[in-house]
Amino acid sequence: MRKQVDLFCVLSLFGAILKWLSVPLSVPFIYSIFGRENPLVFLIPIAVSLIAGLLLERLDSNPQLGLRETFLLVSLSWLGVALVGGLPYVLAGAGTVANPVNALFESMSGFTTTGATVMASISFGTHSPELMFWRQITQWLGGMGIIVLGIAILPRLSVGGSELIEAEAPGTQFDRITPRIVETARILWLLYVILTIILGILLYGSHLVGLSPQMDFYNAVAHALTTMPTGGFSPEAKSIAAFSSTVQWIIIPFMFMAGTNYALMWRAFTGSPRKLYRDTEFIFYSLILVFTTAIIFVMVSGNTFEKTQDAIRHSLFQVLTIVTTAGYASHDFNTWNSMAKTLLFMMMFIGGCAGSTGGGIKVFRWIVTIKMFFKQLFTTIYPRAVQSIRVGENIIKNKTARRVTIMILLYIVTFLIGALIIEIESYRIGLDLETLEIMSASAACIGNIGPGFGIVGPMNNYLAFSPLSKTVMVFLMWAGRLELFTLFVIFIPQYWRN
Amino acid sequence: MRKQVDLFCVLSLFGAILKWLSVPLSVPFIYSIFGRENPLVFLIPIAVSLIAGLLLERLDSNPQLGLRETFLLVSLSWLGVALVGGLPYVLAGAGTVANPVNALFESMSGFTTTGATVMASISFGTHSPELMFWRQITQWLGGMGIIVLGIAILPRLSVGGSELIEAEAPGTQFDRITPRIVETARILWLLYVILTIILGILLYGSHLVGLSPQMDFYNAVAHALTTMPTGGFSPEAKSIAAFSSTVQWIIIPFMFMAGTNYALMWRAFTGSPRKLYRDTEFIFYSLILVFTTAIIFVMVSGNTFEKTQDAIRHSLFQVLTIVTTAGYASHDFNTWNSMAKTLLFMMMFIGGCAGSTGGGIKVFRWIVTIKMFFKQLFTTIYPRAVQSIRVGENIIKNKTARRVTIMILLYIVTFLIGALIIEIESYRIGLDLETLEIMSASAACIGNIGPGFGIVGPMNNYLAFSPLSKTVMVFLMWAGRLELFTLFVIFIPQYWRN
Ligand SMILES: [K+]
Ligand SMILES: [K+]
Repeated sequence: MRKQVDLFCVLSLFGAILKWLSVPLSVPFIYSIFGRENPLVFLIPIAVSLIAGLLLERLDSNPQLGLRETFLLVSLSWLGVALVGGLPYVLAGAGTVANPVNALFESMSGFTTTGATVMASISFGTHSPELMFWRQITQWLGGMGIIVLGIAILPRLSVGGSELIEAEAPGTQFDRITPRIVETARILWLLYVILTIILGILLYGSHLVGLSPQMDFYNAVAHALTTMPTGGFSPEAKSIAAFSSTVQWIIIPFMFMAGTNYALMWRAFTGSPRKLYRDTEFIFYSLILVFTTAIIFVMVSGNTFEKTQDAIRHSLFQVLTIVTTAGYASHDFNTWNSMAKTLLFMMMFIGGCAGSTGGGIKVFRWIVTIKMFFKQLFTTIYPRAVQSIRVGENIIKNKTARRVTIMILLYIVTFLIGALIIEIESYRIGLDLETLEIMSASAACIGNIGPGFGIVGPMNNYLAFSPLSKTVMVFLMWAGRLELFTLFVIFIPQYWRN
Repeated sequence: MRKQVDLFCVLSLFGAILKWLSVPLSVPFIYSIFGRENPLVFLIPIAVSLIAGLLLERLDSNPQLGLRETFLLVSLSWLGVALVGGLPYVLAGAGTVANPVNALFESMSGFTTTGATVMASISFGTHSPELMFWRQITQWLGGMGIIVLGIAILPRLSVGGSELIEAEAPGTQFDRITPRIVETARILWLLYVILTIILGILLYGSHLVGLSPQMDFYNAVAHALTTMPTGGFSPEAKSIAAFSSTVQWIIIPFMFMAGTNYALMWRAFTGSPRKLYRDTEFIFYSLILVFTTAIIFVMVSGNTFEKTQDAIRHSLFQVLTIVTTAGYASHDFNTWNSMAKTLLFMMMFIGGCAGSTGGGIKVFRWIVTIKMFFKQLFTTIYPRAVQSIRVGENIIKNKTARRVTIMILLYIVTFLIGALIIEIESYRIGLDLETLEIMSASAACIGNIGPGFGIVGPMNNYLAFSPLSKTVMVFLMWAGRLELFTLFVIFIPQYWRN
């Protein structure tokens, strides 16, 4: 073990990542040449990412990434990309998002695929189509980042039991050899790209055949970009509620897929659909969705929605959007009865499947926890018995199970501390919030969900909070996306010592 | 290990406990001879406890209590005592509590020192002073039971890290030899009795000197009986808000003591007050109280309370009542602003100190959890390092730490499942509840706190819920009081097999 964290190595590799940010930034730049926005809004960030990236890269000509350096690299990359990716909001100078803290919030919300917004006015009257398109792109990039994180980085870091994520490509055993990981990442990126394209085609297709007048080409691409990463940004102020029921039905299966393990999905699509029925997490995930949709359906049908088909569609859509952490809205669920809202709030703590682009605690961690309950009950009566936990065909080591339980507790404690700070800060600035509003704001940020309830509802925004609250929320989104430990380790003194 | 659970042994020892219930039942019985209630209301339960107790005791002339039997004995005892102790409510036939499910709820709420009520009318117009006095006694008995549970039973059962509870009497090391445990229990019971008497004298004394006109002899005894067990029942509908500020100031230090480790308190009173400052849990407990009181004070002073002294008193009182799980009210905190309520709600998950009569998760478990966070962060960077956790002078074993984290998670999951069932059931019967109401009802039951927010607020009651919801709440109170595992193990199939 080296004596100190190799900062030059970390900065050099961060530079290598940062310079590539110029490529996606060129999309709105080119768009702006033919459009409304001043091209400098994107050209300056392109220059910043290229120059800073290339300069940083020179700090270490042969960077050797160790374990400790990886934590810093991942954490720094997400923050650094969010900072540079937030420049267009500041440079465009339009609306509330031009404020630097707000711009960082919006950008972090994008790259972490959270979908929480501080734009007071989501309309082309305030913001150019180019800037709104960049906002969509940030989520799509965030989703790509998460796939790499889930396959190549987290399993290696053994963070919160993340080594359990089975990310093998067809026919390959998951191991730590780099070419394999690169190959797996490529395959899953391909899947991600293909599903994005199919969704875009379906959305625009429904428009062409007259089933969704609002879903023009721009919107089709924009929403294709934010569905597979479970992002939730929309250039429409009313989110998916602005579109026809056809559009909502198209998005539903894609949200479902976005919340499943991408490796599992790849195998299912490439000849082994039976793998799905044998995957404990997938079964659990599906059962949770069916069960909670049924309850929500009963609670909203007949009162909020007169037609049964509306009640089914909106129940399913909202349950999916919360569990997968997509964060879209097909209806303003703040107008639903408080019982349905309570259930949706509880579901904010489930999260997608491991190996998906979804955030939150994740279904596999809950499965491990439930198994741990039974194991602990068993060893309480038979103290000398040694019992191992199995999830599907995998035997879970004690060490891994401990990581999982501690991760969930840390998640809950971080969520509560976040809620507490937001609460005290909001009180200080005279913002009177209900319990559900405060709690859901913190839960929606750490879970990378986006909208919550009340003031942070799907037709609302996070603008009213103080700069300190927003900074806490940025931290929550960042920490939640990196499964807490990846970020938190760099804050303990022992990380920097030795 | 024996092949099957020795049911006769368990029932015999349960009988031995049950027959003793006739002694406290004689108090309201004698009272009723000179009073208003039909003496049969107490005579029948006395007969039931004596006859059933003596008959059950005969099932096994030489009961040998094994580990597995202990779990069943403890769980069965709390339920059985609650059932027989609830008979007077049914037999008195007055008010809402005469319904059998309600009577069980009220009785379980008493013996678990929860303090949640289903009495629609808390007044001598509806209920006799004798019956209301029995209600107070059930909590005092519950408190005695918890002291025995904490000293003699839980450490032996190694439930949820409870073996960490340091229950040593002065000069003695805690071990498993029965005479020592009996001696420790006697000492702590003595402390419990002495503090109850002192509180009673202080309360009645304040009445005699004219500082609390409402606090007559009956009320002084009644409230002395429910403070040290962190019970919270009151024969006054307005709880402690019915009394003068002097009474509230008298009760404050006794609630504080009720929430601390009784063994630590004994040592502090008998010559080693410095032990307090060296006890990590006590320091944490005190800091939490000071910190949260300060925040609540800021939030309620100037608006809810015009006078600073009122704001200080009520903030401190309510913080203590929630953290120690006493559940009294010096003011209807439902009228406080939602920020203060949110904070009080979060504090429902702290709980008293280990070895106190308080319920909930308990401070020592949170301390272990926080230490585990740092340990896990450390081992994330240095996977091969072996680091042990210390709390004060104690080194915590991995096994114990795991029990603690799993206990907290099981607590949270049980609370959420409870809330979910209560929510669905309430929806079914047309009761429209806010998130905070549902959540706090479940949290107040499993944490043995008593009142929650809204419909279950301190000036309200649990009557409106369906019988199924109330049964779930009875289960939550029961499970919470027995630190979950003690009760849950008897529900896994492996408990009954082998
Ligand atoms: K999202
Ligand atoms: K209580």
